[in-house]
Amino acid sequence: MDPEKPDAAPARPKRRFEPADGDYERRVRESYATQTFMQHIGAELGRIEPGYCEILLPFDRRLCQQDGFLHAGVTTTLADNACGYAAYTLMPEGSRVLSVEFKMNLLRPASGESFAARAEVIKPGRNLTVLEGTVYALSGEEGEKVEKEIAFMVATMTRA
Amino acid sequence: MDPEKPDAAPARPKRRFEPADGDYERRVRESYATQTFMQHIGAELGRIEPGYCEILLPFDRRLCQQDGFLHAGVTTTLADNACGYAAYTLMPEGSRVLSVEFKMNLLRPASGESFAARAEVIKPGRNLTVLEGTVYALSGEEGEKVEKEIAFMVATMTRA
Amino acid sequence: MDPEKPDAAPARPKRRFEPADGDYERRVRESYATQTFMQHIGAELGRIEPGYCEILLPFDRRLCQQDGFLHAGVTTTLADNACGYAAYTLMPEGSRVLSVEFKMNLLRPASGESFAARAEVIKPGRNLTVLEGTVYALSGEEGEKVEKEIAFMVATMTRA
Amino acid sequence: MDPEKPDAAPARPKRRFEPADGDYERRVRESYATQTFMQHIGAELGRIEPGYCEILLPFDRRLCQQDGFLHAGVTTTLADNACGYAAYTLMPEGSRVLSVEFKMNLLRPASGESFAARAEVIKPGRNLTVLEGTVYALSGEEGEKVEKEIAFMVATMTRA
Repeated sequence: MDPEKPDAAPARPKRRFEPADGDYERRVRESYATQTFMQHIGAELGRIEPGYCEILLPFDRRLCQQDGFLHAGVTTTLADNACGYAAYTLMPEGSRVLSVEFKMNLLRPASGESFAARAEVIKPGRNLTVLEGTVYALSGEEGEKVEKEIAFMVATMTRA
Repeated sequence: MDPEKPDAAPARPKRRFEPADGDYERRVRESYATQTFMQHIGAELGRIEPGYCEILLPFDRRLCQQDGFLHAGVTTTLADNACGYAAYTLMPEGSRVLSVEFKMNLLRPASGESFAARAEVIKPGRNLTVLEGTVYALSGEEGEKVEKEIAFMVATMTRA
Repeated sequence: MDPEKPDAAPARPKRRFEPADGDYERRVRESYATQTFMQHIGAELGRIEPGYCEILLPFDRRLCQQDGFLHAGVTTTLADNACGYAAYTLMPEGSRVLSVEFKMNLLRPASGESFAARAEVIKPGRNLTVLEGTVYALSGEEGEKVEKEIAFMVATMTRA
Repeated sequence: MDPEKPDAAPARPKRRFEPADGDYERRVRESYATQTFMQHIGAELGRIEPGYCEILLPFDRRLCQQDGFLHAGVTTTLADNACGYAAYTLMPEGSRVLSVEFKMNLLRPASGESFAARAEVIKPGRNLTVLEGTVYALSGEEGEKVEKEIAFMVATMTRA
């Protein structure tokens, strides 16, 4: 799956941030690799930038709700994780990131060949970081990929 | 939250509702059985009453985040599902239930031997139902079970 | 207006907390008195207990939206303030309280002779306190007061 | 949020919508004029476009909380109203708009010479419309205006 789709939905952050630790991407990837649940559902990290994180998931029939759509719990998992690591990119070395709270609006049935959650920082802070994350359903052939917004999250993350 | 048992968690609803369809429990159990994702994580239905639903999950190392706690995505899955089926108990036969939106506050690290999400209707409606759900971490021997609130959800469900 | 209505909705907190500063009620009342906006809308403090705060408002035609109901901004003001001071009762002397975020679900049209917001702490914390608040519309004669839930808030407050 | 003008706030919507009723602006202005509470606080309508609404408020000492900042209840009123009318622009003639729920994240102290809430539709729907709204604090001379994001709302509106 190619996260670069210039004619599609915003696959890059709208805001720019200066990371406190230039080694942010390595830290994110190392932390991500220890999350057993992300492996259990088959999700992978995509693009990582300061204040931004993308997570990708192929559709899998084991991840569905009663109507055959991706379960809202999975959609939320993608968005929460993307928000968490987007916040983490701006934290100093040695930090841990924890979800304080989040809100999801489910916009459309989660139907697609694969899914991408893209999160970015709205407001960084010493203790609390506020983020927005959008989950997209992707379908179609390479070069004609269609992306639909299926969920929108606002999240508050903290540094521990 | 039960003023009669200040040291015990509310394993029963605070409010009473009259179901439109007396066969609500069978409908909930049949729908639940078709959710592949709930099987994938090993969650099971607990008590069901009009406007109330409980979902149970044993701890499993495959469901964790980077610090070894239950992943917030799993906690949310339990709460969202409990809210959805609590709303569904009050819907007429032939309805489908969909999550419109929800908000989670993560109160404590999700550490326990098992977990229970308990949701109940705050306000039923023809189109929209508002619910609250609490996720508890359970530990300790039978007869000395300790329950800790680890997350609190408010959700809006709709009938389709 | 009498905030004590034993046969009505929960005018007392469900949980019990030990305040860090026994002088919490004086601190709340002094802080409240400096809020020009609460005077501008005519709202007053009701009952205050550790982890609990009530705010009362008589209906006023200057506080309405386009259909003649109490404006959702006013309902939110009552709930946010009740949550803020409920959190403040548990904070040590010299603290300031700030709203981090809140979510409101509007349950019924805000129609009544007066209104009461009642908030209580769900989870206190050193930095972050999570609360729930309910706004009620009150109507009817003394002794036959009717209270209806019109809105439900979940809020996160911080100490500064 | 516009990467081309990093020091300027988005005074125009990011998305484009086709209104069901070309007379949407008149309907919004007529409805707004009947809201006594918006007059009580001195707020005025700004720019209106399909799926977009701006509301403006000069600072007023009667609208403050205990530290002299604009009260979170006022900030919320602006954001809720901007979201409501942004949704209303896309509704057919004869509709009424009601807030179902909203979530506010308070990003910075609400300190400024005036304030602007700008809301736009994320996802329109026959029954439910999801929106985002940002409240800005404005200060500085004409030509050197500074705008700071002070709050972020996600809201669900319905048609009645």
